[in-house]
Amino acid sequence: MSHFSKHVFFCTNKRANGETCCANHGVDELRAYAKDRTKALGLAGEGKVRINSAGCLDRCDSGPVMVVYPDAVWYTFVDKEDIDEIVESHLKNGKAVDRLKI
Amino acid sequence: MSHFSKHVFFCTNKRANGETCCANHGVDELRAYAKDRTKALGLAGEGKVRINSAGCLDRCDSGPVMVVYPDAVWYTFVDKEDIDEIVESHLKNGKAVDRLKI
Repeated sequence: MSHFSKHVFFCTNKRANGETCCANHGVDELRAYAKDRTKALGLAGEGKVRINSAGCLDRCDSGPVMVVYPDAVWYTFVDKEDIDEIVESHLKNGKAVDRLKI
Repeated sequence: MSHFSKHVFFCTNKRANGETCCANHGVDELRAYAKDRTKALGLAGEGKVRINSAGCLDRCDSGPVMVVYPDAVWYTFVDKEDIDEIVESHLKNGKAVDRLKI
Protein backbone atom coordinates (compact mmCIF):
# COMPACT_ATOMS: atom_id res chain seq x y z
CA MET A 1 0.00 0.00 0.00
CA SER A 2 1.20 3.48 -0.81
CA HIS A 3 2.39 5.56 2.17
CA PHE A 4 0.11 8.31 0.85
CA SER A 5 -2.96 7.25 -1.12
CA LYS A 6 -2.67 10.45 -3.18
CA HIS A 7 0.69 12.20 -3.25
CA VAL A 8 0.40 15.51 -5.07
CA PHE A 9 3.39 17.45 -6.37
CA PHE A 10 3.03 21.06 -7.47
CA CYS A 11 5.79 22.44 -9.62
CA THR A 12 6.96 25.51 -7.72
CA ASN A 13 10.10 26.05 -9.72
CA LYS A 14 11.36 29.59 -10.14
CA ARG A 15 13.66 30.44 -13.01
CA ALA A 16 16.35 32.94 -12.19
CA ASN A 17 16.45 34.50 -15.64
CA GLY A 18 12.82 35.56 -15.70
CA GLU A 19 11.67 32.97 -18.22
CA THR A 20 8.07 31.85 -17.89
CA CYS A 21 7.64 29.02 -15.43
CA CYS A 22 5.00 27.53 -13.18
CA ALA A 23 5.83 29.94 -10.37
CA ASN A 24 4.64 32.87 -12.50
CA HIS A 25 1.09 31.60 -12.20
CA GLY A 26 0.37 32.03 -8.50
CA VAL A 27 1.39 28.47 -7.75
CA ASP A 28 2.56 29.09 -4.19
CA GLU A 29 -0.82 30.51 -3.26
CA LEU A 30 -2.73 27.73 -5.04
CA ARG A 31 -0.60 25.03 -3.46
CA ALA A 32 -1.19 26.52 -0.01
CA TYR A 33 -4.88 26.62 -0.82
CA ALA A 34 -4.89 22.94 -1.83
CA LYS A 35 -3.08 22.07 1.39
CA ASP A 36 -5.57 24.01 3.48
CA ARG A 37 -8.54 22.43 1.71
CA THR A 38 -7.30 18.86 2.11
CA LYS A 39 -6.70 19.51 5.82
CA ALA A 40 -10.11 21.12 6.25
CA LEU A 41 -11.76 18.12 4.60
CA GLY A 42 -9.87 15.65 6.81
CA LEU A 43 -8.05 14.17 3.83
CA ALA A 44 -4.47 14.96 4.88
CA GLY A 45 -2.10 12.52 6.56
CA GLU A 46 -0.41 9.15 6.34
CA GLY A 47 -2.40 6.69 4.27
CA LYS A 48 -4.30 9.63 2.86
CA VAL A 49 -3.37 12.80 0.95
CA ARG A 50 -0.09 14.72 0.91
CA ILE A 51 0.32 18.04 -0.89
CA ASN A 52 3.95 18.67 -1.81
CA SER A 53 6.07 21.26 -3.53
CA ALA A 54 8.53 20.10 -6.15
CA GLY A 55 11.25 21.49 -8.36
CA CYS A 56 10.77 21.75 -12.11
CA LEU A 57 8.63 18.85 -13.35
CA ASP A 58 9.89 19.41 -16.89
CA ARG A 59 6.49 20.19 -18.39
CA CYS A 60 6.91 23.96 -18.49
CA ASP A 61 4.95 24.39 -21.73
CA SER A 62 1.84 23.03 -20.01
CA GLY A 63 2.39 24.96 -16.78
CA PRO A 64 1.36 25.52 -14.16
CA VAL A 65 1.30 21.79 -13.51
CA MET A 66 0.80 19.30 -10.73
CA VAL A 67 0.89 15.51 -10.73
CA VAL A 68 -1.05 13.09 -8.53
CA TYR A 69 0.74 9.84 -7.70
CA PRO A 70 0.57 6.87 -7.67
CA ASP A 71 -2.23 7.55 -10.18
CA ALA A 72 0.22 9.45 -12.45
CA VAL A 73 -2.48 11.94 -13.42
CA TRP A 74 -1.20 15.36 -14.51
CA TYR A 75 -3.16 18.58 -14.31
CA THR A 76 -2.93 22.19 -15.19
CA PHE A 77 -5.04 24.76 -13.31
CA VAL A 78 -5.67 28.47 -13.22
CA ASP A 79 -7.56 29.32 -10.06
CA LYS A 80 -9.04 28.15 -6.77
CA GLU A 81 -12.10 26.76 -8.51
CA ASP A 82 -9.86 24.36 -10.43
CA ILE A 83 -8.12 23.35 -7.21
CA ASP A 84 -11.48 22.83 -5.50
CA GLU A 85 -12.58 20.52 -8.27
CA ILE A 86 -9.39 18.47 -8.17
CA VAL A 87 -9.53 18.19 -4.37
CA GLU A 88 -13.20 17.27 -4.27
CA SER A 89 -13.37 14.99 -7.28
CA HIS A 90 -9.96 13.36 -7.44
CA LEU A 91 -8.42 13.56 -3.97
CA LYS A 92 -11.62 13.01 -2.04
CA ASN A 93 -13.66 10.82 -4.38
CA GLY A 94 -11.01 9.21 -6.57
CA LYS A 95 -12.41 10.50 -9.84
CA ALA A 96 -9.92 12.34 -12.07
CA VAL A 97 -10.95 15.70 -13.52
CA ASP A 98 -10.78 15.17 -17.27
CA ARG A 99 -11.12 18.83 -18.28
CA LEU A 100 -7.92 19.80 -16.42
CA LYS A 101 -5.78 16.83 -17.43
CA ILE A 102 -2.71 17.35 -19.56
CA MET B 1 0.86 5.38 -19.54
CA SER B 2 2.81 7.46 -17.07
CA HIS B 3 4.52 10.56 -18.49
CA PHE B 4 7.66 9.35 -16.72
CA SER B 5 8.04 5.61 -16.18
CA LYS B 6 9.94 6.31 -12.94
CA HIS B 7 9.47 9.70 -11.34
CA VAL B 8 11.83 10.09 -8.41
CA PHE B 9 11.43 12.74 -5.73
CA PHE B 10 14.26 13.50 -3.33
CA CYS B 11 13.32 15.37 -0.19
CA THR B 12 15.59 18.42 -0.27
CA ASN B 13 13.82 20.31 2.47
CA LYS B 14 15.86 22.64 4.65
CA ARG B 15 14.58 23.59 8.05
CA ALA B 16 15.27 27.17 9.04
CA ASN B 17 15.65 26.44 12.74
CA GLY B 18 18.48 23.95 12.39
CA GLU B 19 16.41 20.87 13.22
CA THR B 20 17.59 17.66 11.60
CA CYS B 21 16.17 17.16 8.13
CA CYS B 22 16.97 15.39 4.90
CA ALA B 23 19.12 18.28 3.67
CA ASN B 24 21.60 17.65 6.49
CA HIS B 25 22.63 14.39 4.83
CA GLY B 26 24.23 15.58 1.61
CA VAL B 27 21.01 15.21 -0.31
CA ASP B 28 21.71 17.92 -2.87
CA GLU B 29 24.94 16.21 -3.89
CA LEU B 30 23.35 12.75 -3.97
CA ARG B 31 20.38 13.99 -5.99
CA ALA B 32 22.74 15.62 -8.50
CA TYR B 33 24.66 12.36 -8.65
CA ALA B 34 21.47 10.37 -9.33
CA LYS B 35 20.55 12.82 -12.08
CA ASP B 36 23.97 12.54 -13.67
CA ARG B 37 23.92 8.74 -13.52
CA THR B 38 20.47 8.40 -15.09
CA LYS B 39 21.56 10.74 -17.91
CA ALA B 40 24.82 8.87 -18.40
CA LEU B 41 22.94 5.58 -18.65
CA GLY B 42 20.46 7.01 -21.18
CA LEU B 43 17.56 6.55 -18.77
CA ALA B 44 16.47 10.20 -18.49
CA GLY B 45 13.60 11.78 -20.41
CA GLU B 46 9.93 11.63 -21.27
CA GLY B 47 8.56 8.10 -20.98
CA LYS B 48 11.64 7.23 -18.96
CA VAL B 49 13.18 8.48 -15.72
CA ARG B 50 12.91 11.92 -14.10
CA ILE B 51 14.91 12.87 -11.00
CA ASN B 52 13.20 15.65 -9.05
CA SER B 53 13.69 17.69 -5.94
CA ALA B 54 10.78 18.07 -3.55
CA GLY B 55 9.87 19.87 -0.39
CA CYS B 56 9.43 18.00 2.88
CA LEU B 57 7.99 14.54 2.20
CA ASP B 58 6.89 14.27 5.83
CA ARG B 59 9.03 11.26 6.65
CA CYS B 60 11.79 13.13 8.45
CA ASP B 61 12.43 10.36 10.99
CA SER B 62 13.47 8.03 8.17
CA GLY B 63 15.51 10.66 6.31
CA PRO B 64 17.13 11.18 4.01
CA VAL B 65 14.33 9.86 1.84
CA MET B 66 13.28 9.58 -1.76
CA VAL B 67 10.21 8.06 -3.36
CA VAL B 68 9.87 6.43 -6.77
CA TYR B 69 6.48 6.84 -8.46
CA PRO B 70 4.22 5.46 -9.79
CA ASP B 71 5.68 2.45 -7.98
CA ALA B 72 5.31 4.23 -4.61
CA VAL B 73 8.56 2.71 -3.34
CA TRP B 74 10.32 4.71 -0.63
CA TYR B 75 14.04 4.59 0.09
CA THR B 76 16.59 5.92 2.45
CA PHE B 77 20.24 6.12 1.42
CA VAL B 78 23.58 7.22 2.77
CA ASP B 79 26.05 7.43 -0.09
CA LYS B 80 26.72 7.14 -3.81
CA GLU B 81 26.89 3.35 -3.61
CA ASP B 82 23.27 3.32 -2.42
CA ILE B 83 22.28 5.67 -5.25
CA ASP B 84 24.12 3.48 -7.76
CA GLU B 85 22.21 0.44 -6.58
CA ILE B 86 18.84 2.20 -6.79
CA VAL B 87 19.61 3.59 -10.26
CA GLU B 88 20.92 0.30 -11.62
CA SER B 89 18.46 -2.09 -10.01
CA HIS B 90 15.24 -0.11 -9.76
CA LEU B 91 15.40 2.69 -12.31
CA LYS B 92 17.19 0.71 -15.00
CA ASN B 93 16.00 -2.84 -14.38
CA GLY B 94 12.73 -2.33 -12.52
CA LYS B 95 13.74 -4.33 -9.45
CA ALA B 96 13.30 -2.49 -6.14
CA VAL B 97 16.21 -2.52 -3.69
CA ASP B 98 14.79 -4.20 -0.61
CA ARG B 99 17.65 -3.37 1.75
CA LEU B 100 17.12 0.39 1.32
CA LYS B 101 13.33 0.43 1.45
CA ILE B 102 11.54 2.18 4.24
